[in-house]
Amino acid sequence: MPRTAAILVIGNEVLSGKVHDRNSYFLCRELRALGVQVARIVSILDDVETIGREARALSDSHDFVFTSGGVGPTHDDVTMDGISHGFGVTAVHHPVLEAILRKHYQGEVSTARLRMALVPDGAELVEAEGLFYPVVLFHNVYVLPGVPEILEQKFHAIRERFRDEPFHLKRLYVNAFESAIADTLTAVVNEFPGIDIGSYPTWNFDEYKVMVTVESRDAALLERGFTSLLARIPPEWVVKTG
Amino acid sequence: MPRTAAILVIGNEVLSGKVHDRNSYFLCRELRALGVQVARIVSILDDVETIGREARALSDSHDFVFTSGGVGPTHDDVTMDGISHGFGVTAVHHPVLEAILRKHYQGEVSTARLRMALVPDGAELVEAEGLFYPVVLFHNVYVLPGVPEILEQKFHAIRERFRDEPFHLKRLYVNAFESAIADTLTAVVNEFPGIDIGSYPTWNFDEYKVMVTVESRDAALLERGFTSLLARIPPEWVVKTG
Repeated sequence: MPRTAAILVIGNEVLSGKVHDRNSYFLCRELRALGVQVARIVSILDDVETIGREARALSDSHDFVFTSGGVGPTHDDVTMDGISHGFGVTAVHHPVLEAILRKHYQGEVSTARLRMALVPDGAELVEAEGLFYPVVLFHNVYVLPGVPEILEQKFHAIRERFRDEPFHLKRLYVNAFESAIADTLTAVVNEFPGIDIGSYPTWNFDEYKVMVTVESRDAALLERGFTSLLARIPPEWVVKTG
Repeated sequence: MPRTAAILVIGNEVLSGKVHDRNSYFLCRELRALGVQVARIVSILDDVETIGREARALSDSHDFVFTSGGVGPTHDDVTMDGISHGFGVTAVHHPVLEAILRKHYQGEVSTARLRMALVPDGAELVEAEGLFYPVVLFHNVYVLPGVPEILEQKFHAIRERFRDEPFHLKRLYVNAFESAIADTLTAVVNEFPGIDIGSYPTWNFDEYKVMVTVESRDAALLERGFTSLLARIPPEWVVKTG
């Protein structure tokens, strides 16, 4: 059974349109390349109740959850409080994180700075090569920061633990309207269970009108399905494959 | 009571990382500028059951819902079927939309093309200046297409119906670490209920270390809160305000 993931984006700045979230896009690409199906992304406000309810619900229904945002020193960084609330545990200072902060800030460790050592009680730390600060894991929830460069660095450090059977993908670019190939795509999807076909029209783009993606976990099945699809499309409509 | 909105992004291509969704970012910015609070974004796969469940839940808990994607002629365009399913109605061909399609495609209206006339039974059409094809509205759910240029054009045509009391915003850029100003931000938030403060650290950026946003629906309150915040930040840390 392929494993599924969910992404929880936490931050008023995303919902108020101040920031174009790129963390969920990064995680979707990375997880796809690792063979993991992202089944759901939810973006919510910095609110303890909401974070708790969502983190718990996503954790119960997916193999992995990745949260993005809300883990700094300020009043609006309430991800750890939220997750703790959702699972009915308290947020506590993790001794290993606290030691890292005390060393880093020397004598100047304020209450605000110590907030960065908060974890839901029972959380484990995932250490990895090249990480100054470990990743916090609670149940199946990986807690990642909102700053894209740090999130990316942390995910890269731990990515191999998520690797699964790969997805195989082929693309077909056609110079015809989507509605002209729709029946053909439906026929191929029905004939080859285990194959997914996506159809993505372009807008004001000269090279091709539609990109068709054909995917499967089964490479041989993908080849058969793709060959069958190609045979049904008039050759003069095919711009390229890849 | 300020009105809230939710966005439902529908499409395997987003969750598989093939496409970086920009429709939710566009809608968040537009709705914010109109004074509407986006409270939730959910991104899901092209699946009738899931679409139905989500659309119904978001509709019940928000003033407006905007869906993006899944309204073309192909097998994976199942947004109308999904919404219909979620509300327990059938998807039917809307006579006005069908007439537009028949005129546009002249004699060549296939079953696939007619899928673009499907709406949940009972849906209304929102016509507006400059729209070739009206926007489908079912209960409080506005159904928008996934192609960004068309979604943007459609939203612009109907945007005035969402206008509410505006949000007022001021920004402060500081050249200090977030943890150094965290206690000050908390104090101002506690002292001025009705003001929201966000704190956004930069990464490898020379001009400033943190952008602080201060917002309120009440312009006079915002002025007071912002003045109070500025008075508490050492002047040598202030890069600029705006």
